[in-house]
Amino acid sequence: MDEFATIARYFAPLAGPGGLGLSDDAAVLTPPAGRDLVVTVDAMIENVHFLSADPPDQVARKLLRVNLSDLAAMGARPVGYVMTTGVPKGTDEAWFEAFTRGLAADQKEFGIQLLGGDTILSPSGLALSLTALGAVPTGMALRRSNAKPAEEIWVSGSIGDGYLGLNLLKGRHEATGEDAEYLAARYRLPEPRLDLGWRLVGVASAAIDVSDGLAADLGHICETSGVAATISLDAIPFSDAGRRALDAGRAAAEDLLTGGDDYELLFTAPAGAREAIQVLAAETRIPITRIGTTGEGEGVHLVAPDGTEHRLHKAGFTHF
Amino acid sequence: MDEFATIARYFAPLAGPGGLGLSDDAAVLTPPAGRDLVVTVDAMIENVHFLSADPPDQVARKLLRVNLSDLAAMGARPVGYVMTTGVPKGTDEAWFEAFTRGLAADQKEFGIQLLGGDTILSPSGLALSLTALGAVPTGMALRRSNAKPAEEIWVSGSIGDGYLGLNLLKGRHEATGEDAEYLAARYRLPEPRLDLGWRLVGVASAAIDVSDGLAADLGHICETSGVAATISLDAIPFSDAGRRALDAGRAAAEDLLTGGDDYELLFTAPAGAREAIQVLAAETRIPITRIGTTGEGEGVHLVAPDGTEHRLHKAGFTHF
Repeated sequence: MDEFATIARYFAPLAGPGGLGLSDDAAVLTPPAGRDLVVTVDAMIENVHFLSADPPDQVARKLLRVNLSDLAAMGARPVGYVMTTGVPKGTDEAWFEAFTRGLAADQKEFGIQLLGGDTILSPSGLALSLTALGAVPTGMALRRSNAKPAEEIWVSGSIGDGYLGLNLLKGRHEATGEDAEYLAARYRLPEPRLDLGWRLVGVASAAIDVSDGLAADLGHICETSGVAATISLDAIPFSDAGRRALDAGRAAAEDLLTGGDDYELLFTAPAGAREAIQVLAAETRIPITRIGTTGEGEGVHLVAPDGTEHRLHKAGFTHF
Repeated sequence: MDEFATIARYFAPLAGPGGLGLSDDAAVLTPPAGRDLVVTVDAMIENVHFLSADPPDQVARKLLRVNLSDLAAMGARPVGYVMTTGVPKGTDEAWFEAFTRGLAADQKEFGIQLLGGDTILSPSGLALSLTALGAVPTGMALRRSNAKPAEEIWVSGSIGDGYLGLNLLKGRHEATGEDAEYLAARYRLPEPRLDLGWRLVGVASAAIDVSDGLAADLGHICETSGVAATISLDAIPFSDAGRRALDAGRAAAEDLLTGGDDYELLFTAPAGAREAIQVLAAETRIPITRIGTTGEGEGVHLVAPDGTEHRLHKAGFTHF
């Protein structure tokens, strides 16, 4: 099956009007008036960012969703995407069918279109790169760098499920029944918080999506904003499955705070925004939890239930 | 050297204001008023699209330029780009230094900025993907699909040098002195015809850049426009080096017409545009040669100097 036939059969049906049927040199897009364009790119490599055993439709959706999560963190609504699909020699039609079926499902869910792409041979394993375009009201994009001292720190959903799901799929974590299903799904099919991100424009002072881990990503906000953060371990939202793993001693809180792949929104806001945020949580039906405060200084500090304070790094805790 | 340090040291200096210092989840861009956005993506894999021996700065510039060539074919002016840089484990600082030095040189030459990127480990060899953004007056993007019968077919520069350069570098073609230098440079460092493409808006009816080879790319115009093309072998512009290779029997015209990597602009225009095109050629100092005409029907037909007619395919000639 040659490149042109693959594109015509599997990718062209995903292209919206801007993609010109994928039969031109480039896509054409009329930017919506009064909006800034937001552009992000994330790549996924087989056996680095996903497992060979992961179903192709879920790999496709995760590739799309990790990029949509970046748009969510900027407060942007998605518009479309272009993609490089690097496939090993001999990749069969079943793979393309499943991969593009996953994309079609998520295009419908998120109201976006494929604009263009490049399908190439990859010498070893799948090598995928996706560029997502979104739009946000002019000058209003959420940034990492605008947190101020004495603000409150919030996070959506639950933290640590991505870490547990990855380890479960790698045979390094034990879970059964509903917990196993839930954790695997959280790793394979993250939920980009687009609606929440869009509504946080004008409410949050700074935002990021939790991809490197809560500790590292809160560290990015602190570093670019020039503030310190203090969060309380008691306040961190864990899922029921995560809570059960902690209670059974099958995972440490440190792992859940430093593992990545949660794709929740982590943001700061002045105390006066508390009510607005609670309304947002009710309207979007996404739990949003206040986990700490910002202050003068630098670094991410974690207060344990016994009152002791630790410094939180990407790699774990440092005891003072 | 970790990902964050590499980005901060080598890539962040390439980022313009929209790139937010590459320290945010995504880039933000205010689209120019009265313009459509044009988006294209092209990937390059080591030992598929370039050779391991190619200097990193030239690989970087070629990656950028093949994408800019796609923008040129749409009549767009470049605005910026995002990039996925997949590098093998152990890639040293010298590689990043040379690679980003190449990008910096071309950013200056073409007036564009890096907007964002993803730097990842690649399991085998370099895997690069670049998405370029450009702008064109609203509704005026050049397309492949608007050629009409009884128009004239034009091409910029010379055809076949990319093919000869690639084969020279692979040790499959003989050339020496200035010819060798010229052909290697044509393969390694194509010249995107941005200024010409921008000026062809409103003049050309259809356009494409010659990346798959003149035969294949003219075939794309014919197929999407629903026309036939007849070109004259006598009229095809070869470079002096290409002409010498033909005369010495070291290459066949068939190879030069079906090899790729020329990155010249191939376009159609009504006969009435002939004078405007000649003015364009004079002003841009780029040779533009009339090589044939379109007609009713389908396929690309080549008239040889002896008057015999051949059907021209991606793979070569078919004798009638």
